[in-house]
Amino acid sequence: MTAHSFPLNTWYAAAWTHEVGAKLTPRKICGTSIVLYRQQGGTVAALEDACWHRLLPLSLGFLRGDEVVCGYHGLVFNPEGRCTFMPAQKTINPSACVRAYPVVERHRLIWIWPGDPALADPATIPDFHHNDGTDWVGTGGTRYGLKCNYRLVVDNLMDLTHESYVHAGSIGDDNITAAPFDVTHTDRTVTLTRWMIGIEPPPFWKKLLGKPGVHVDRWQIVTLQAPSTIVGDVGVAVTGTGAPDGDRSQGVNGAFLAAITPETETSCHYFWNFVRNFDKENEELSQALNKGHVNDGKGVYDQDFFVLEAQQRAIDEHPRMPFYNLNIDAGVLWAHRMIDQMIAREATTTSAAAE
Amino acid sequence: MTAHSFPLNTWYAAAWTHEVGAKLTPRKICGTSIVLYRQQGGTVAALEDACWHRLLPLSLGFLRGDEVVCGYHGLVFNPEGRCTFMPAQKTINPSACVRAYPVVERHRLIWIWPGDPALADPATIPDFHHNDGTDWVGTGGTRYGLKCNYRLVVDNLMDLTHESYVHAGSIGDDNITAAPFDVTHTDRTVTLTRWMIGIEPPPFWKKLLGKPGVHVDRWQIVTLQAPSTIVGDVGVAVTGTGAPDGDRSQGVNGAFLAAITPETETSCHYFWNFVRNFDKENEELSQALNKGHVNDGKGVYDQDFFVLEAQQRAIDEHPRMPFYNLNIDAGVLWAHRMIDQMIAREATTTSAAAE
Amino acid sequence: MTAHSFPLNTWYAAAWTHEVGAKLTPRKICGTSIVLYRQQGGTVAALEDACWHRLLPLSLGFLRGDEVVCGYHGLVFNPEGRCTFMPAQKTINPSACVRAYPVVERHRLIWIWPGDPALADPATIPDFHHNDGTDWVGTGGTRYGLKCNYRLVVDNLMDLTHESYVHAGSIGDDNITAAPFDVTHTDRTVTLTRWMIGIEPPPFWKKLLGKPGVHVDRWQIVTLQAPSTIVGDVGVAVTGTGAPDGDRSQGVNGAFLAAITPETETSCHYFWNFVRNFDKENEELSQALNKGHVNDGKGVYDQDFFVLEAQQRAIDEHPRMPFYNLNIDAGVLWAHRMIDQMIAREATTTSAAAE
Repeated sequence: MTAHSFPLNTWYAAAWTHEVGAKLTPRKICGTSIVLYRQQGGTVAALEDACWHRLLPLSLGFLRGDEVVCGYHGLVFNPEGRCTFMPAQKTINPSACVRAYPVVERHRLIWIWPGDPALADPATIPDFHHNDGTDWVGTGGTRYGLKCNYRLVVDNLMDLTHESYVHAGSIGDDNITAAPFDVTHTDRTVTLTRWMIGIEPPPFWKKLLGKPGVHVDRWQIVTLQAPSTIVGDVGVAVTGTGAPDGDRSQGVNGAFLAAITPETETSCHYFWNFVRNFDKENEELSQALNKGHVNDGKGVYDQDFFVLEAQQRAIDEHPRMPFYNLNIDAGVLWAHRMIDQMIAREATTTSAAAE
Repeated sequence: MTAHSFPLNTWYAAAWTHEVGAKLTPRKICGTSIVLYRQQGGTVAALEDACWHRLLPLSLGFLRGDEVVCGYHGLVFNPEGRCTFMPAQKTINPSACVRAYPVVERHRLIWIWPGDPALADPATIPDFHHNDGTDWVGTGGTRYGLKCNYRLVVDNLMDLTHESYVHAGSIGDDNITAAPFDVTHTDRTVTLTRWMIGIEPPPFWKKLLGKPGVHVDRWQIVTLQAPSTIVGDVGVAVTGTGAPDGDRSQGVNGAFLAAITPETETSCHYFWNFVRNFDKENEELSQALNKGHVNDGKGVYDQDFFVLEAQQRAIDEHPRMPFYNLNIDAGVLWAHRMIDQMIAREATTTSAAAE
Repeated sequence: MTAHSFPLNTWYAAAWTHEVGAKLTPRKICGTSIVLYRQQGGTVAALEDACWHRLLPLSLGFLRGDEVVCGYHGLVFNPEGRCTFMPAQKTINPSACVRAYPVVERHRLIWIWPGDPALADPATIPDFHHNDGTDWVGTGGTRYGLKCNYRLVVDNLMDLTHESYVHAGSIGDDNITAAPFDVTHTDRTVTLTRWMIGIEPPPFWKKLLGKPGVHVDRWQIVTLQAPSTIVGDVGVAVTGTGAPDGDRSQGVNGAFLAAITPETETSCHYFWNFVRNFDKENEELSQALNKGHVNDGKGVYDQDFFVLEAQQRAIDEHPRMPFYNLNIDAGVLWAHRMIDQMIAREATTTSAAAE
């Protein structure tokens, strides 16, 4: 068994709900080619994207009702992956099937479980209720095939001091680096909390708050659910109005959501959304916020993509060089420890099962 | 010695006769770079395309009479591969030579023997007399560098049930898949025979037959000469007029010729021709038939190319995944067995010679 | 330790003086990414181009005075490679540093020593005084990232018989190949001397000499300082006027300078200049000579580049094929012997140090 940098027994975002209809949609996840499609009853199916017979991607075939017809010799597979037709053959080999993956649609995303289906528990799907369109608004998007290992994105989001350098002039300033922070954790989550008290707000938040001249308390409360979904509770409120004690009424509150799905060892799909719970009907603001994040190389996430891909290239060039860590990496280190434990646990389980 | 998926002691098509004149023409065959040129007397020479001295491809040099001059330091090689001139040197190292390959021109193709020259017997060149311009007409062409292992093309042609799916709407329909077939073989050939009796002809044949409304008997008699040349005797005749018993007078008869030459382990050159023995002066029809096969992505072979390259990519992604076989693969299995035997026999011969 | 085809304890040209200012300039040398910049006092610094913390290339950051700020988390490194600032951290890990490379500017080039800094002796920088703008004029240029191992360029310049074939019609003719030559050597240099007495000058030299109809003595005195800097003293003088005995007054004299810097095992940077010591104010001639060497594929060096890259591709395709040598390769063989000795000596030193 090849060692991976990612666990398999977990839910990964595979697509946005609106991207998958009654057509064959290929997607590579955790190094495996998968084909997604929506059945007539509305449920999404996810099959291994390689015909049992001669490996042609099933996504090059076509749908017939809820079944997939291979485009080469016409073998048919049902949504459970079982072969239901073979050309010129009455008896179907009972072992003829492709893998079917557990799928759940929740919070506007389609989640896939690439590991052992028996362990797939929908209760462990990350809480992205912000996407549900009730208290929060925001559209979001995906950078498919970002050319870096998915953990580099986790590192990026679990240490926001990078904002001071990568995002100077929008959301980053020296206050972030200067402020102390706490790291706490549970079995499967790591939370990094940073409060900047009585500071001049950075341009992005100053504009959203709309109260020129005031000083603010700014917060960043970032929670990772291992391995790679993150919710960042962020915002600013007029200083002295009690935000650190829970009263955010004199402020503005947003959240960034990130679901990072390994594609290969050196690429990933980055599902992102930036949501807010104020001025919710303002469609112009929604669009401006989306553009502020991804905008043809000029958005905040575009800046991250540039750095992350450069970092991956540097890693490829220095294969034996270790990473060194700073105090600011406390959250990153906890994240890696949890991910490594998930992977180690899978290796044990697999070995036991193989005995 | 590296294991190959192809035998070397066999004839492979390297070029069409009209493609090789008095100029240096590089071609990669069985992983080896070869340079072809036509000598003044008309004979084609085939040399290893790498100078003995410093490996520069000889094809970057120039012809002087029937000899090749290297473009770097001017070493000269004759058509037998022997060095006849070295710069600033009177005595020529007797071991200074490049490999010369047995070459035969036959049936409008130039055939090369990449293996042991002592074994090269022109009598074993595949029978492609259809190309000779006597009883059959057809131009044909080549897809150089098709990005798949050459065996995938053999598989493709030795199981025409794929026509029902890959070529639906032209030559493929459900009758092919429904019809029974026989597989016979000799030492070096496999023949797959399928008769479809009293069927509605598919659009391609309906048009060629020119008898609207009639039902036909359709035949596909495909013979592989291992490792990779194929002649497919195909056609339709009005049903009940005796075609299965040998009387094809009430029908139309074509043949597809395919010579598949390995370029590398994951690419090949596909020499094809579709010939007919009726309406032979009809130049417009000849052109239409050529276009029907290869036409900027829209021809019948273009459809195959698309599937074959996708299949190779899938194999590269699933290196340890086995192929599974269906009843329809009987011809394919015989083909593989013969090719594997040819390769195994070479390994034995080589070992014996090395003792 | 990986075996390289190049020594590390030597000076390699990294850039022309005018190319490096107060900005971060990345350059890969001997497989290592390096960032160059000019400090406020005028000295050039050369640092490993990968942050100690997370490997992001420092060249993607920015300069603050004479120090480099990493563009990801703001770590700061001084020109000696020592980290002088870490975000959110008072104490700096004393081991936090990136490699700094010895740098010397001389003869209009910036020279870097990629090996053990303790051994870096500026006295061993190659003598390229022709670049200094005193007795000789010439601009020169660089082919960065030429896609061949640097030794292939050494081979090219240490055997000028290739001029007869690669540069026929400008500087090459059959006289070069016909003339005898001597090879001499010292500890670290190889010199190849060829005199062609009483010959018709080739077009290039005929024009420069400007004496139609005369016959000339032509000389090529090429000296390699191992591993890969070369000075070629070249010219023609009216025959019978004593050039072979040292009187070049009736001739014209040029010199080609070449500094070949390994980039990777299969690519290099080729710093070249063609200088002359006559008609020095003639700016038009200077430009014409530059264009004669590199001119969008049509210059003399462009012809070499084409051959060298083709040769590297051929080597990559024939990994186990040895090179064979001719009499003309006497200079090349001495060059390889010296380079191999330099590499062997480093291996010994390294082993001893490691005990």
